[in-house]
Amino acid sequence: MAEMEKYTDKLIKVLRVRLKDAPGYFGRLADAIGGEGANLGDITRVRVTSHYVVRDVVVYIEDEGQLDRIVRAIGELHGIKLEEIIDEVLRMHEGGKIAMQSTVDLRTISDLAKIYTPGVAQVCRRIVADRTSAASYTGIANTVAIVTNGTAILGLGDIGPVAGMPVMEGKAVIMEKMVDISPVPILLDSKDPDEIVHVVSRIAPTFGVIQLEDIAAPICFEVERRLDEMLDIPVFHDDQHGTAVVALGALITALKRVEKVPDNIRVVISGAGAAGMEISRMLLHFGVSELILCDREGAIYPGRSEGMNRFKEEIADRTNPQRKRGTLAEMMAGADVFIGVSAPNLVTADMVRRMAKKAIVFAMANPVPEIRPDEALNAGAAIACDGRSLNNALAFPGILRGALDARVACITDAMKMAASASIAEQTRKDEIVPDFMHREYHRKLADAVREAANSER
Amino acid sequence: MAEMEKYTDKLIKVLRVRLKDAPGYFGRLADAIGGEGANLGDITRVRVTSHYVVRDVVVYIEDEGQLDRIVRAIGELHGIKLEEIIDEVLRMHEGGKIAMQSTVDLRTISDLAKIYTPGVAQVCRRIVADRTSAASYTGIANTVAIVTNGTAILGLGDIGPVAGMPVMEGKAVIMEKMVDISPVPILLDSKDPDEIVHVVSRIAPTFGVIQLEDIAAPICFEVERRLDEMLDIPVFHDDQHGTAVVALGALITALKRVEKVPDNIRVVISGAGAAGMEISRMLLHFGVSELILCDREGAIYPGRSEGMNRFKEEIADRTNPQRKRGTLAEMMAGADVFIGVSAPNLVTADMVRRMAKKAIVFAMANPVPEIRPDEALNAGAAIACDGRSLNNALAFPGILRGALDARVACITDAMKMAASASIAEQTRKDEIVPDFMHREYHRKLADAVREAANSER
Repeated sequence: MAEMEKYTDKLIKVLRVRLKDAPGYFGRLADAIGGEGANLGDITRVRVTSHYVVRDVVVYIEDEGQLDRIVRAIGELHGIKLEEIIDEVLRMHEGGKIAMQSTVDLRTISDLAKIYTPGVAQVCRRIVADRTSAASYTGIANTVAIVTNGTAILGLGDIGPVAGMPVMEGKAVIMEKMVDISPVPILLDSKDPDEIVHVVSRIAPTFGVIQLEDIAAPICFEVERRLDEMLDIPVFHDDQHGTAVVALGALITALKRVEKVPDNIRVVISGAGAAGMEISRMLLHFGVSELILCDREGAIYPGRSEGMNRFKEEIADRTNPQRKRGTLAEMMAGADVFIGVSAPNLVTADMVRRMAKKAIVFAMANPVPEIRPDEALNAGAAIACDGRSLNNALAFPGILRGALDARVACITDAMKMAASASIAEQTRKDEIVPDFMHREYHRKLADAVREAANSER
Repeated sequence: MAEMEKYTDKLIKVLRVRLKDAPGYFGRLADAIGGEGANLGDITRVRVTSHYVVRDVVVYIEDEGQLDRIVRAIGELHGIKLEEIIDEVLRMHEGGKIAMQSTVDLRTISDLAKIYTPGVAQVCRRIVADRTSAASYTGIANTVAIVTNGTAILGLGDIGPVAGMPVMEGKAVIMEKMVDISPVPILLDSKDPDEIVHVVSRIAPTFGVIQLEDIAAPICFEVERRLDEMLDIPVFHDDQHGTAVVALGALITALKRVEKVPDNIRVVISGAGAAGMEISRMLLHFGVSELILCDREGAIYPGRSEGMNRFKEEIADRTNPQRKRGTLAEMMAGADVFIGVSAPNLVTADMVRRMAKKAIVFAMANPVPEIRPDEALNAGAAIACDGRSLNNALAFPGILRGALDARVACITDAMKMAASASIAEQTRKDEIVPDFMHREYHRKLADAVREAANSER
């Protein structure tokens, strides 16, 4: 299965190694690294002479202790010398990963007169006369704000907006490289929903879409809903909608593979945070007949007394048709599909074993899944994958591009359903999701989203 | 004198003209254009065949009527055909002038693992452990917010933030091209100083400097002061400080040229808005002995009853040592220096004639000056220039670069004085200000600002 990255919970280091340029030396190096239990990544040649070759060897390690053991093991090898240990990840992040660039020349005083005073005044006057022309003569309509307060960064939790910036810049790189969006991270120093809504609404004229990112539930729901009502541009909360679009896209493919239909299956979702809520809504829209959403307290049902909130009560009314009560394990017994957006290692092999035949397991907790896909497959699941393949980076670039291209005021259910359908359509026969690295894939998804938007007009 | 652009109040069009490729034809074309009173800009060859040549001819015109007359005049020429009229300015603005770009590669799944999940988590953790490392591993420390609410855009006034965006993008292009800053325009939908301060303070963690831009006085003073007190990064109001730094830089050169010294001159400043206030403060700091600030009501003095505000009262206590009362014209009689940041055509040739010998006239109102430099020179001024040469684009790129390089919390008087001194130092013998187009000039100014910052530590 295509995976975004296998070693989600490991450190990445680059060993710059000088080897005698003769058969057998690299094999001994690889043995030494493998012998200490580390995995190999890319291996590239840095320098070649008549006597030796210098290679950069990417290794995935558990911790610094394992690295020390590898260093010692290499030290004992004849004809092989470790020149340097490079922290490739830190190196790639030096100075940040994005920068604003000019798309026009500034070489002569004539250029200056056109892009700045006095020429620019005529462009301003044009926008005064016709506000919609701002979409043609400024970058606003292609700019996406990536707004975070840093309260739910990856698996790291509430680390604040500044420490979350590397993630925002990473998302920005994906947007720019895959779909030519101009992304602008906005780090918000606030945890108060009123304040977040207020601040974002005041700076909204700058952007074509507001993407909310890694803002903790349940505040994220309220912030998204209120901003979406206030603003005439789309507001997209990636942790909800991106994840849900990918989960449904993969589910369409998986159900086809196991020959099941949505109106005759039981789906159990673990996790009633941002993602779980939106996956539930999309699966209902898709026509799943029996859907049970579970949190720490087990199945959610109307009138449950413990650990409820407004959003859980709302979803309780629309799910769990038989009003079942019980633990996650009890709900999973006989279920056709498990979707996890909750916590590491919540699901045991036994729980998978008690699911229905040809069970589908999407264990999407990040970075450590509810159950490892290989364990789930061993326990009898027909299809199992985790967040490494079911990554929302498959969805958000194309959805944002499509929304910008269609110039819509909001991203509708129909647009999200079109995105899921496009994911399923573009998935190769032996995969569950498409290959993230192809720009063409994101472009097609964007087209599907734009067409869905246009057919709603 | 080096000028940013001569024709500040004209429209710029490009005439794409096909001419017979033989001597004399271009001359006839130029005669026809000149005959209708239009000025020629750049002339470039677009296409050449054995029989004819197609040229793009930039013309500066007064209005569409003049353009029509030019079109008719060209129509009557034998062997010359007008193919197209191109609005070069609009064309350069299509799609906006800036876009966020990635500074890292995203070609393989290995790249993705480093810039996004899982690799990015290690960078986040590093910033959690040491907040200052955000300056190394994110773009924050090189990013400048260009914040406007669009209430004082160029000579256009209160046109709102969206219509002001072309100006913000123009400033952004200058910053990026000249000093490698990553500039991010922020369009603020608010005229309330409390709200502006609040919103900017909440998004401030995103940036290394906040540049306030084209926010109307007197709100801009309060916003700048309060933000500067609240934030641990510099807040720079270009319309005040940029303009003042350039005015002082040019004044240093001009005084040397006419062999006068600051503690023995009278300077009259017209305009008590953002720029006038700050020019006054900097000239006092520079040691000007007699400084009189004038507004619509004439000279400002302590206890004046008409048209005062808190900021005018503050400056009144420190200027006008003889507590003179009267009109601008009365104040200018016998003055050595006039600096205008007020309104078009306020100053007559007669008023210049009554100034002291070897008078200096800086008429900086935009886009039409208080008096045209040629008129002022004809009336006896030794040195006269307007906003086309005294443009704050000479100051803000280097000041911001220097402040970012020095990682200061605010931009001090010493840093601004160093910027003015650098402008004067870098001015060629026959000029009043340096040539804007040289990156080297901005780099040297930045170095001077950084050194001034470092010597204050």
